[in-house]
Formats: sequence, C-alpha cells, structure tokens
Amino acid sequence: MIVKSYGAAGGKGYFTARNQKEFDDKLKNYSEERFIVQEYVIGVPVYFHFFYSPLTKKVEVMSIDKRYETNVDSLGRIPAQNQKGLNIEPTFEVVANIPMAVRESMLTEAETSQTLIPPKGLFGPFCLETIITSSEEIYIIEISARIVAGTNCFINGSPYTYLNYDEPMSTGRRIAREIKNAIKQNRLKEVLD
Amino acid sequence: MIVKSYGAAGGKGYFTARNQKEFDDKLKNYSEERFIVQEYVIGVPVYFHFFYSPLTKKVEVMSIDKRYETNVDSLGRIPAQNQKGLNIEPTFEVVANIPMAVRESMLTEAETSQTLIPPKGLFGPFCLETIITSSEEIYIIEISARIVAGTNCFINGSPYTYLNYDEPMSTGRRIAREIKNAIKQNRLKEVLD
Amino acid sequence: MIVKSYGAAGGKGYFTARNQKEFDDKLKNYSEERFIVQEYVIGVPVYFHFFYSPLTKKVEVMSIDKRYETNVDSLGRIPAQNQKGLNIEPTFEVVANIPMAVRESMLTEAETSQTLIPPKGLFGPFCLETIITSSEEIYIIEISARIVAGTNCFINGSPYTYLNYDEPMSTGRRIAREIKNAIKQNRLKEVLD
Repeated sequence: MIVKSYGAAGGKGYFTARNQKEFDDKLKNYSEERFIVQEYVIGVPVYFHFFYSPLTKKVEVMSIDKRYETNVDSLGRIPAQNQKGLNIEPTFEVVANIPMAVRESMLTEAETSQTLIPPKGLFGPFCLETIITSSEEIYIIEISARIVAGTNCFINGSPYTYLNYDEPMSTGRRIAREIKNAIKQNRLKEVLD
Repeated sequence: MIVKSYGAAGGKGYFTARNQKEFDDKLKNYSEERFIVQEYVIGVPVYFHFFYSPLTKKVEVMSIDKRYETNVDSLGRIPAQNQKGLNIEPTFEVVANIPMAVRESMLTEAETSQTLIPPKGLFGPFCLETIITSSEEIYIIEISARIVAGTNCFINGSPYTYLNYDEPMSTGRRIAREIKNAIKQNRLKEVLD
Repeated sequence: MIVKSYGAAGGKGYFTARNQKEFDDKLKNYSEERFIVQEYVIGVPVYFHFFYSPLTKKVEVMSIDKRYETNVDSLGRIPAQNQKGLNIEPTFEVVANIPMAVRESMLTEAETSQTLIPPKGLFGPFCLETIITSSEEIYIIEISARIVAGTNCFINGSPYTYLNYDEPMSTGRRIAREIKNAIKQNRLKEVLD
C-alpha cells in the first residue's frame, strides 16, 4: 500500500508499506495528521492534462507527462545487490516533469473521462493522474482540478494542442481564450464558479 | 533471452527467461502461435526514426524516442528488498513515447544504417529499434518499416527536422512532401511500391 | 562512492564502489591515470543549462535535461531476482538526453548559482550537473563550462527560452546574439576571454 499526505504537497510525506507491521512501524514517525491509504498498483505512472470547455462541451487533451520523483526514480540505477544493506526507503518528491505522447488507443480510454464531468462539474484545466498496468488497465489515482506542473513542459504547445490550434497553445493561454470567448458570447457565468 | 510475439502488437505477448527450464515453464501458458527468441542484451533502448527518399538518395534522421513500457519501466521504482516475494514478471506493453536527442557520435553510427537500404529497398519512414550497450555497441533488435508511434512526440517537428527544414516537419508532412516532389519531377513510380 | 575519469568523456571510465575492498579490487583493472572520487549521493540527476551574460549581468535558464546512460538506466528494467547471478556492474556512458521542466521552486534554488559567478567569472553557456535528494537538497556534482549535449533537445527553443524570447532560441543562437549585442555596444572585450 501507499500512504499519502493530504493536498498538493508535490509527493512530500508519502510512504509505502507491504504489510500491517510495516505500516504500524512507519506511522509512529509520521508527522502528517491527515492522510489517505491506497493500494500500490504496479504499473507506469502517466499524467493526462485536460481542458474541459463549458462553451464547446468538449474535453481537449492538452498534454501528457510523467513526473520525475526523488529518490524513487533513481533507485533502479542501483543494482539489486548494491541496494542490500543500504535500506533505502522510496520517497516521491516531485522534482521535474518529462513530456510524453501516449499510444493512440490510450486516448480513447481517456475520453471515457468525460463521464467524470456531470453538467457543470469539473471544467477548465484538470489532470488525471493514472497508473497503467500490464493488462493496460488505467487506474486513476488522483484528480487535480487545477493547472499541474507537468504543463510547464508545454509552454510553447504540445503535440496535442498543435493538432487543435494553429498557434502555440499553453494551458494559460487556453484559459485566457476561454474567458475571452465567453465574454464575446455573453456567457461568462458559464465558465466561472 | 526474450521471447516476442509476431507483428506490431506494441510489446504485448513478450516474456523473458533466464534458462531452458524457465523458458519451458513459461511457454506452457503462452498463447501466441508464432514468436521469435532473441538474446536479451543489457543496455538502454533507443528508437531512431528515419526517412529515406529515393528522390534525393538521402536518409534523414527525423527524430528519436524511447518507449515507456508497462510494467517494466516501473520495476526500478520498487526497492530490491520490496520486490522480494512479489514475483513480478516484467511485461513490455508500450504505453507512451518519450522524446530524446542522442549523443552526436551516435548519429554517425546511425548513418551506417544506409547499408540497410539496397537500391530501392527500404524507403519512406522507418524505425531502427536498438539497444546500446556499455561499450557503445548498437544492437538493432527490430526494424519497423512504417511510421512508428514515437513520431507522435514530434508532430510539430523535432530538433533534427528543425535543422533540415524551415517549417515544422512531422513524418506525415514529410511523406506528403515526398509525393508532391515526386509528382513535380514526374518520378512518382520511384516513391511508390 | 563513485570514481570518475577526468574531463568530458561522456561518463566513460566511471565506476562505483561500496567499500575500500571493492574500490581496491576495481582499481586494479582501471586504465585511467587521473580520476576523482566522489560520495555517491542517492537522488535523481538533473542538468540545468544556463547562460550568463556579462552585458546584462543576468543568468538565464536556457533548458533542463536528464541524461540517458547505458547501462545504468536499463538496470531497473531487470527484476531484482533476475539480476542475481548476472553480476552487472553499472556503467554511465551517456547515450542521449531527455528534456524536462523542473518544479518551479527548484528554479529559485538554481538562482543561488549566481554566487558561482564572481565578477567576470563563468560566463556564456554552462551547465550545473546536480543530484536532488529526498529532502530536496541540490548537490552540484560537476560544472561544465561549455555547451552541453543536453541542449540538443532544445535546438528549436525550450519552455524557458520561450518565456524570455519571441523567437526559437537555441544556445548557439544565444551565443551569436551575445556577440552581436557586444559589437553593437562596443563591449566585445567583455564577452571574450
């Protein structure tokens, strides 16, 4: 299982445990007051950045990234035999984001994320944080209802925004565009909360 | 060794075995009828995307990526001691592609790939799928004679196409350009099969 | 600890050792005459590309990458139990570079790198090669006072240069621009050594 502190703390205050005893032991030295416990799913993390427009009723794929987390993304660089005796605990502090493009069939799956959005639900920029397993099942482990750091890779546009727009489209510009379009159409209330 | 199912299945139906017994055991539950057996080379995977033009007789480096495969690219995030008892089998399903630029000396090696192309051999877009070892030997493990998914990272051009063209050049546009140029030069037959 | 050969050899001639015995044993077969010994810091490698202009007195963040090294970046793809008996030694030969964008709070830290630059010290393009640990400490493990290969990912600009310039700004173009500006301002001596 994986234990996560509450809110957007960039992976700070996360730990893993394989059983009750390990969980109990680690909890003793844990300083966070509020946390959630999730099943640790074995698979690769993928972060999908979307933008849902109440004006067009469309979910746009803005971009996709993976996080680069310390120290967990460096553990694999240490041979198994060298890890012995080091007793390294994985930590998940986000240091950077790496741009990606996903297999096209995954995007069809992503569209089912529309079911996440009831009338006037989650709109504007949001991120589905997923783990994709060997059997290509997509587990959504968190939803960030905001601009995520991963969009920083795509300030000059992404392969996906490039298909939808004739100009470099960052998430920031997309928000500005939405407000501008809403004002033009006298529908500002629909894009504000 | 690594056992691979036939055709472009995105890494589905692959398994590894360290010896005859492991191979025999795993084969019992293997559903693929046709497969190939390859030596498992220890080194990093790199995918070179090329375009060979029969009109200009040049091989162009279009772009370079690495694949992001589940679950194999997540194994390193689990400390060796925690992997114990989990008995995780690596799987190689391609989930996404990550853009890269290679060390320049590697590109010289890549040019020797011209020897792969006999008169009117492999033309248009193709991909050399390689493993690069500690001693910088480049093993070509597969050739894809088509547009590969890794080019999706570069719909708005790559560092390499940017050096060759004054406009964003995707692999799709490059193909269209080739056909256009062939028609202009009345050499359409040379670029079709 | 990690033992590194001298100069820019792209990670060739590096080895790790966990104790005196391992160090002595490996040194016997080591062919480099000059080397340095560093503490092996557990954390993720991040390479910051900067440009310091004596004309504007500003350090610009040009781009950020991580290296892709053989065979060390492939070890994590081999399950711990399969690594047994293979006795794989990690090697650190740089094969490629992968673009990244860092967490914004890291960039503030990066600005303290200005202290590295005394009056007319390190100017033009340079790279700080860092390891970032679980506690978000940034260890500078090397300084490259030159254009590094990681900038090849950003020949058409990076998310960072895009914020500073209205045109695609590579490190090469930035150097040319600096010389041009220096000539215009009759300050060429200040940007040459």
